[in-house]
Order: sequence, then C-alpha cells, then structure tokens
Amino acid sequence: MSRPKILVQLDPDPQASLFDAVVAVDSDVDQLLQYRQVEPAQVRDLVHGAVFTRGPKDLHQTAIFVGGSDVAQGERLLEHVVDSFFGPLRVSVFLDANGANTTAAAAVLAAERHLSLAGCTATVLAATGPVGQRVVRILAGEGCHVRVASRSMERAAAVCAQVNDAGHASQTEPVATTDENALTAALDGAQLVIAAGAAGIRLLPEKVMAQSNLQVAIDLNAVPPLGMEAVEVMDQAEQRGDCICYGAVGVGGTKMKIHKAAIRKLFTQNDLVLDVDEVFALGREVVGAGD
Amino acid sequence: MSRPKILVQLDPDPQASLFDAVVAVDSDVDQLLQYRQVEPAQVRDLVHGAVFTRGPKDLHQTAIFVGGSDVAQGERLLEHVVDSFFGPLRVSVFLDANGANTTAAAAVLAAERHLSLAGCTATVLAATGPVGQRVVRILAGEGCHVRVASRSMERAAAVCAQVNDAGHASQTEPVATTDENALTAALDGAQLVIAAGAAGIRLLPEKVMAQSNLQVAIDLNAVPPLGMEAVEVMDQAEQRGDCICYGAVGVGGTKMKIHKAAIRKLFTQNDLVLDVDEVFALGREVVGAGD
Amino acid sequence: MSRPKILVQLDPDPQASLFDAVVAVDSDVDQLLQYRQVEPAQVRDLVHGAVFTRGPKDLHQTAIFVGGSDVAQGERLLEHVVDSFFGPLRVSVFLDANGANTTAAAAVLAAERHLSLAGCTATVLAATGPVGQRVVRILAGEGCHVRVASRSMERAAAVCAQVNDAGHASQTEPVATTDENALTAALDGAQLVIAAGAAGIRLLPEKVMAQSNLQVAIDLNAVPPLGMEAVEVMDQAEQRGDCICYGAVGVGGTKMKIHKAAIRKLFTQNDLVLDVDEVFALGREVVGAGD
Repeated sequence: MSRPKILVQLDPDPQASLFDAVVAVDSDVDQLLQYRQVEPAQVRDLVHGAVFTRGPKDLHQTAIFVGGSDVAQGERLLEHVVDSFFGPLRVSVFLDANGANTTAAAAVLAAERHLSLAGCTATVLAATGPVGQRVVRILAGEGCHVRVASRSMERAAAVCAQVNDAGHASQTEPVATTDENALTAALDGAQLVIAAGAAGIRLLPEKVMAQSNLQVAIDLNAVPPLGMEAVEVMDQAEQRGDCICYGAVGVGGTKMKIHKAAIRKLFTQNDLVLDVDEVFALGREVVGAGD
Repeated sequence: MSRPKILVQLDPDPQASLFDAVVAVDSDVDQLLQYRQVEPAQVRDLVHGAVFTRGPKDLHQTAIFVGGSDVAQGERLLEHVVDSFFGPLRVSVFLDANGANTTAAAAVLAAERHLSLAGCTATVLAATGPVGQRVVRILAGEGCHVRVASRSMERAAAVCAQVNDAGHASQTEPVATTDENALTAALDGAQLVIAAGAAGIRLLPEKVMAQSNLQVAIDLNAVPPLGMEAVEVMDQAEQRGDCICYGAVGVGGTKMKIHKAAIRKLFTQNDLVLDVDEVFALGREVVGAGD
Repeated sequence: MSRPKILVQLDPDPQASLFDAVVAVDSDVDQLLQYRQVEPAQVRDLVHGAVFTRGPKDLHQTAIFVGGSDVAQGERLLEHVVDSFFGPLRVSVFLDANGANTTAAAAVLAAERHLSLAGCTATVLAATGPVGQRVVRILAGEGCHVRVASRSMERAAAVCAQVNDAGHASQTEPVATTDENALTAALDGAQLVIAAGAAGIRLLPEKVMAQSNLQVAIDLNAVPPLGMEAVEVMDQAEQRGDCICYGAVGVGGTKMKIHKAAIRKLFTQNDLVLDVDEVFALGREVVGAGD
C-alpha cells in the first residue's frame, strides 16, 4: 500500500500562494502542507522533517514545491533545500516562484510550434528579469542566437556572461534598448521576439514591430498596458500581418499543463530538482503528447 | 470527473478559527485551505489564485469562507473579495465572521416557529452590534415592526436609518434603553424580544420581563451573566410563564445546520454571495426540511 | 457514517513541525489542521472550536497534538488545553514536543529488551533536560534505582525531588558528574546508562565506559560529537565489549512506531491525555506486538 502523496509548499510571502495551492490539489496531491513566511534559516528543519519520516522506498511520495512572488527568494530557498539533504535521504523539489519556470518554458514552446529554434535569431525584451533570464537560457540551449535586451547594457551583459558561462549550445549578445532606434536595431533580422517585462510596462510600440520581419511575437505581460502594442493578451497563434502572436493568456494554457505535469513528476522519484532546464524538457513532453 | 471541492478560509485573526475549520470538514469540503492574519490588501492575490486556476465549468468547485472574530473586519474582507472578481471569473463566498449571520438567522427562525413575523412587534436589545443589526434587518424584511434598542439613541437611530434605507418590508424605530422604565416601555406591546448583547452583559432583568406580554424571548449570549435573567442558556422552546424561551445553546443546533447548509450551497454555483439575507433564506429552507 | 478524523497540530514554533505533520498523515489522520506560533492565550478559543463543533458521540474523531521544539512551551500549551475542556466536552490530546515522550519511552523499551528494570541500577546522564527527566521518571516507575546525573547537583536534586514526590516505585538519587572521577563513580555498579544530552555534547568518554560493568548503554544524541564516545549513532543492540549499545537512530524505529500508535490511539476515545506515562505504556504494547 503506497503512502499518501505529500506536497510541502514553501513560500516566503506573507500569505502562501493560493494559485499554487489549487494547482497542487488539481495535480493529484493527496496532502498539501502550506508553509508561508519561510526564511532560509528555517528550511533545514523542514527538509529534515521531510526526509526523516518515511523510509527510503517511500521518500518519492513526499515532495517540495518552492513558490512565492519573488524569484530570487525562491532560488535561495531552493539552494537551502538541496543543501539540507543527507545523501540519498532526499525528496524531489520543484521551483516555480512567480511562475517563472513554467512561463518561460511555455513561451519558448509556443515559439517552437512555428519556428525552428536552432540557428534562428531571437530578441528577448526585458531579458534581465527572472522570466527573461530563463527565456534566454532556454533559447540559448536550443541553439538560438539570442539578443539579450535591457535598458541597461551592463545588466544585459551580466546576463549574457552568466548564460554563456553555463556552456549552452549558442552564444548570447547584449543589446541596450534605450530608444526606438536601438529597439529597431535589436529586432533587425530577428525571427522571434519575446517580451518578459514587468506588469504594465510597454516594451514594443506597434510602429517598431511593423518595420521588423518577425515571424513570432510573444508578450508575457497580462496587465495593461501590455508589453507589445500590437499583441492582445488573449492572442494564441493569432496571425497579425506576417507575424504569429501570443499574449500572456494565450500561453497560459500550456503553462498550466506544464505546472501540473511538474507536480505529478515530483512523485515518480525522490531525487529530482525541477528548475528551468528540467521544466522546459518536461514541457516539451507535455506539448508533444498533444497540447 | 469533478474537481475536489476547495474551501478557502480567510480569517483576519492571529489564528484561523478552528470552529469554522471543523464545520467545513464536516460539510463535505474535500480540501480546506486556511489563511489567517489576512489583510484587505492581500485579498486580491488570493482571489486571483482562486479564479485563475480552474476553468469556468469547474469554478463552482472552489469557494471562499470569510470568518474571524471581528464582523467589521470580515465585512471589509468580503468587499475586497467581491471587488477582486473578473466578471464571470468568480467563485462563491460566504461571510460568517463571529457566526453573526448564522446566529441572527437561527434566532429569527426560532421566533418564527411560534409567531407570525409579519405585523408583529419585536424589540431587539443591544441591536447596534453585528448580530443585533442582522437580526433587525431580517425582522424588518419579514414585516415586523422592529424597535431597535441601544443604550445610545444615536447609534440606534443610525442602525434604523441604514435598515430603512435598504427598503425593507417594514420600518424600524430607535429606542434608548437607558433605565428600567425605558426598557419596560421598549417591551410594551411587543410579542418578541431578542437580546444580541456581548458576552456577560445582563440586558433584561426578570422583573421587567414579568411585566411584559412577550410571547417569545431569545437570548443569544452564552456566557454568564446571561442577557436575560429569566432565560437559561440551554432553553429551547422552554415555556416560562406565558413566554416561550430560547437560550444561546438552544438556537445553536439550528445555527450549526444553517452553517453547514451554507458551506454546501457554495459549491452548487460559482456566483453566490452569502450574507445575512441569503443565509436567512437558506436557513428557512433548512428548517422547513425538518429541523 | 463516522466523521473524518481531524488532528489539530498546536505548535509554538515559527513554523509548525513538518516531521510531526508527515507522521500524522502516515497515521491515518483524515484531516490535519496545522497551527503554528500558538500562544497559551490562544489555546482556549482553539479548544472550544474542537469541542463545540461535533456531538458527544463524534468527539473522539477530533484530537489535538502538541508539538514544537521547546518541551516547556509544549507542557504549558498542554495545561491550557486540558484547562479549556468543559467537563465531558473534551477531546484527546498527545504531547510530544521535541519528540521527548516518544524518545524517552523508546530508550527505556530498548533497555528493557536486555535487562530486568525492577531492581537494576541505572544512570541517566544529562538527566535534567526534558528527555532526561522523562527517562528518569519512567525508570523510577519501573522500579529501577536511578542515579540522576547532571553537572549541577542542585538541578539533579530538584529533578529527584519532583520524581520522588510523584510516588514512583523506587527512589532516585542525584549525582553531580563534574569530572571523570565523579562520572566513574556515577556508573559504578550500574547495569544501564542512558545519555539524554543536547546535540553535539560528549557526555561519556570511552575510557570511563571501559571501566564500568554496564550491560546496556543508550545514547540519544544524533548529532556529532555523540554523547557516548564508544557508541555509534546507528547502533541497534550492537555488542561492544560486554555492553549492548544503542545510538539515536538505533532507537528511532521504535520511537516512530510509538509516535504513530499514539496518534491512532487518540481517536479511540475522547478523554485521553497522552503524556510520558501513557506514552510509555503504549510503547510497551507496541513493542510487545512484535517490534
């Protein structure tokens, strides 16, 4: 008889995400244990509670989800989780703070339906935020030439250095999108643009997009004003001029499928760490299985 | 296959009410998610987590309960909940902070077993508190002549103005119960008295009650000294002189049935807002079905 | 139809113990309700929520677990729980803050496999801590001559006075283990030693142990440096010289079985208070049933 599947939700926010909780319940978790206001120093005891309670053959029935609105805090919690394991005494863990990993994976998978990523040129706007960095990393791993765009050349260069150091299939290059001319240049020759900016910030005016030869445009901002003037939030493979467009809600269905698949995956073994690369690989399986 | 029924308990108190949690578990909720120390500013994100996670046809399987010991705080949370919905993207919500709605409904339903409410005269003692105000509102809606009694005429008048503005079937009138003579006058000609005072406060001495022609007396205070000297906490349709009496525990059974019925009702559609009027209407169905 | 089994976890710590939560889930609890940062003043309302929600014949389906890392705080919460019951309106409660009761019981049960406790001489090192005091109390109750060892004679004497006042089967005597000579004397003629010290504190050097005629040595410290130099954390009835040794992990299996049995026991009636004596008695049943 197998043990109930326990998911431990670790969330640094004042209230644990209800979004993440509902998705967990809908992903066949038997027992959700919500922890909020979780500080790095509290992680060790919690992880010990996870690994010292069930025998080795049942450890895959306990898993940890790290969420919350702040991706940097989530990453820190994830590090503490992994550091607290005792050799084979460990449980699987999935990081999706602010939905960053599932959103980035869903965006790239939307692009991949219409483009061959290897060898294409992609521009990522607001690429230095947590979702943007993850999009850059996935695209580089798939062999895209990635232009890492930010208002700050310094921050763009830092992201490139980090991604290039990770030894991905292709190199990235920083671009500063300080004005419309710079933005136009950043899109010149690109087939794909993904905007990963914060809520309510316009990143790409319609007239700049009209001058481009983009084949796919994906905007991940769901709160008006949207990141791309020419793209609607509900767009899902919407043909606008010569460009296929996706809005934030348009990639939301795939994002949700990936999130649920990742929760279910946690309970298949006790040693998974699902971060951006693993989540993208899983997303590809999910989409391939008939999204 | 239907989704698990998720009830989200929003509670502003330092600890979420265990009373409300146990009642939820006993009302066929599949998954209870407890949130405590909930502040109005946190409601929007929580509501979004409720409405953006399940498709339209499953939204009725998620619902919100607003509780806590402070009715005014609960009302504020309820407002924020309703304001955070997106058109049809909403879930049902039930307010029963401090048990105020279910208690008020149970009290009036107890009276209704013995009296025809329409046209009768009812005096509500300590009528300006959260339970008292709800009792006044229900009685006015049923066509009672309601005397709204308080030590403060000003507060009594404010409650009357609010209830009369709501356009109920009958008008209310304020009375100040500053001494025994005023209290005697407030009960003169009344068939029903309901005491909705705070715990441990005596509102109606036995000798004042003895001079009245009351047919039904209901005391909602469960902590000695009780609100009515002549009524016992366990009284349930107890005949005392010519008056039928109920104490707080005596209406507790009906209150609990209404509470559970309201929780179950939440999951029948996704757009209910169960506040005082809806809870009373539901209570009448519950009692009619053989309380 | 019986009600779901609800376990209320009351924990004074910043985060409720995940260890205790997982064990609860694995002990057939249907609904775990976790409360953290619980203060004594909050207990009454929580207990009322437990006892006023289900009818007398269902009260045994609700129970309370008091945990947390601080045994003294747990004891205070337990007192408040018991004080908040209303005569027969009560639920069963189990104290195992910091695992103190289950650990003490498991240690004595390990000794009992190899020794007849009645009439034997046992030395308890670091006997004034929460686990040590419980070990002393159980051993005295079983008729051991117990030497209560501490660096402080005063604290040792206080523990003895408390245990002797409780009228156990045998008397205890305080010993101050201020240096190796004192420690050697404290073990002279003893058949059993149990070390109940804090994590990382060495209590018994190998050379002192080598001079003794101990038959059983049990170290409850799991964090190096261990409490006994000659005992390993995984030892489980390991023969070392003439002495049978147990380490903290070696008694962990029995501890876990007792913990689970105690959780299950809670739901058999509504008036149990499972503290050290009850937990030891239960442990003996568990071990007798084929540990």
